[in-house]
Amino acid sequence: MAFLELFGCISSGGDEPGEGQQYSSDKKATHATASVFINDNEDGLLHDYDVWLEKLAPHEPTSQYHHNRTGEDNADAHLKRQIMGREVVVAITKGKLDFGPWEQIFYGEFDGRRSKRVLVKIIGE
Amino acid sequence: MAFLELFGCISSGGDEPGEGQQYSSDKKATHATASVFINDNEDGLLHDYDVWLEKLAPHEPTSQYHHNRTGEDNADAHLKRQIMGREVVVAITKGKLDFGPWEQIFYGEFDGRRSKRVLVKIIGE
Amino acid sequence: MAFLELFGCISSGGDEPGEGQQYSSDKKATHATASVFINDNEDGLLHDYDVWLEKLAPHEPTSQYHHNRTGEDNADAHLKRQIMGREVVVAITKGKLDFGPWEQIFYGEFDGRRSKRVLVKIIGE
Repeated sequence: MAFLELFGCISSGGDEPGEGQQYSSDKKATHATASVFINDNEDGLLHDYDVWLEKLAPHEPTSQYHHNRTGEDNADAHLKRQIMGREVVVAITKGKLDFGPWEQIFYGEFDGRRSKRVLVKIIGE
Repeated sequence: MAFLELFGCISSGGDEPGEGQQYSSDKKATHATASVFINDNEDGLLHDYDVWLEKLAPHEPTSQYHHNRTGEDNADAHLKRQIMGREVVVAITKGKLDFGPWEQIFYGEFDGRRSKRVLVKIIGE
Repeated sequence: MAFLELFGCISSGGDEPGEGQQYSSDKKATHATASVFINDNEDGLLHDYDVWLEKLAPHEPTSQYHHNRTGEDNADAHLKRQIMGREVVVAITKGKLDFGPWEQIFYGEFDGRRSKRVLVKIIGE
C-alpha cells in the first residue's frame, strides 16, 4: 500500500479563475484498485490507514475472495478503494482549492499493479 | 443484496457534448438504503462485496440496532450504503464517461424494499 | 461523536434557480476529523452509526495509532471520517435539493475539537 500526496501537481493544473468566481475541481483515480481521498498529511496517520485497511479488508488469505479466481490476487484492493473512495470534489475559491487547515489530496495505491492515471477536471463559470 | 450494472442506460442519458467540452455527470441513489458506486464488473468481486459488507455491517441479530425499533429491520442496509457510497461524480470527455479500464457504475440494493430511482444530472458548459 | 442535521440552513443557502435549471450543490466539512453525509434522520440510526463507527475504528487504546504520537488522540476520528465521507454532491431541481424520501444532510463530528466550518457551493447555469 502506498499513499502519494497530490496537492502540488493539482494546484497548478487548471486555469486561474478570477476573483469571486466559483470553480469546482473533480479529481479521481481511474482504476478500481486505487483511491483519491482527502485527509491530514501526517506520516503516522498514513501508517494508521495502512494498518486499518489491512484489518478491514485483509489481503491474506487470497483464497477467501472469489475475484481472485480470475488469476488476480487483488480483491482486497478493490474493497480498500471502496473504503477510501474513488473521487473527491473540491471547491475552488479565488483561485485556490478550498481546504480545511490540514486537508491534502492523496492518491492511495492498493495493489501496486499497472501504471495508473489521475484525472483532474475543472468546472465552473 | 443485489448489484445492478447501470452503465448502459446512463451512457445514453444526456445530450452529447461537442469535442473538447467538459461535462461532469452526477449519479446518485435517492434512497438511504441503496448505493451508486463504481468498481470492476466481475461477478466474483460482486460476490466478495456481498460477503464483506455482511461482515462489516451484519443484518443479524436485527435487535442489535436501535433503528430497527421503528419496525424496520434494515439498519444494516443504512450502514452498508455508507461504506459503498451514495453518489458518484464522473467526468465526461468528448461525449464519453471518463472511466478507467475496468470501471463500471453499479447500483447496490441493500434492503430490497420499495421501488427506488437513480438520478442522473449532466452539468457543464 | 455527534451528528447535526444541516438541511435547514443549507436549503436557503443559495440563489433560487428558475424552473428547469439544473444546479448542483456541493457541501463539505473542511476538517479532516469531521464528515458531511446523507442518510435517514432517525435518532435510533444515528445511535447505530455511533456504535458501529466505534467498532470499526475504536478510540481506545489511543496508543494503537501512530498519529497519536503527535500529541493528538484523534487518529480514530480521521478513520471515522473516511467511512462517513468528506463531502456530498446534491442535485438541485426546480430550486429544491433533490433528495430521496428519507434523505437528510448531516454533519458528523468525531473528535469534538476546534471550531469547524461547513462549506456550501452552488454551481450551475
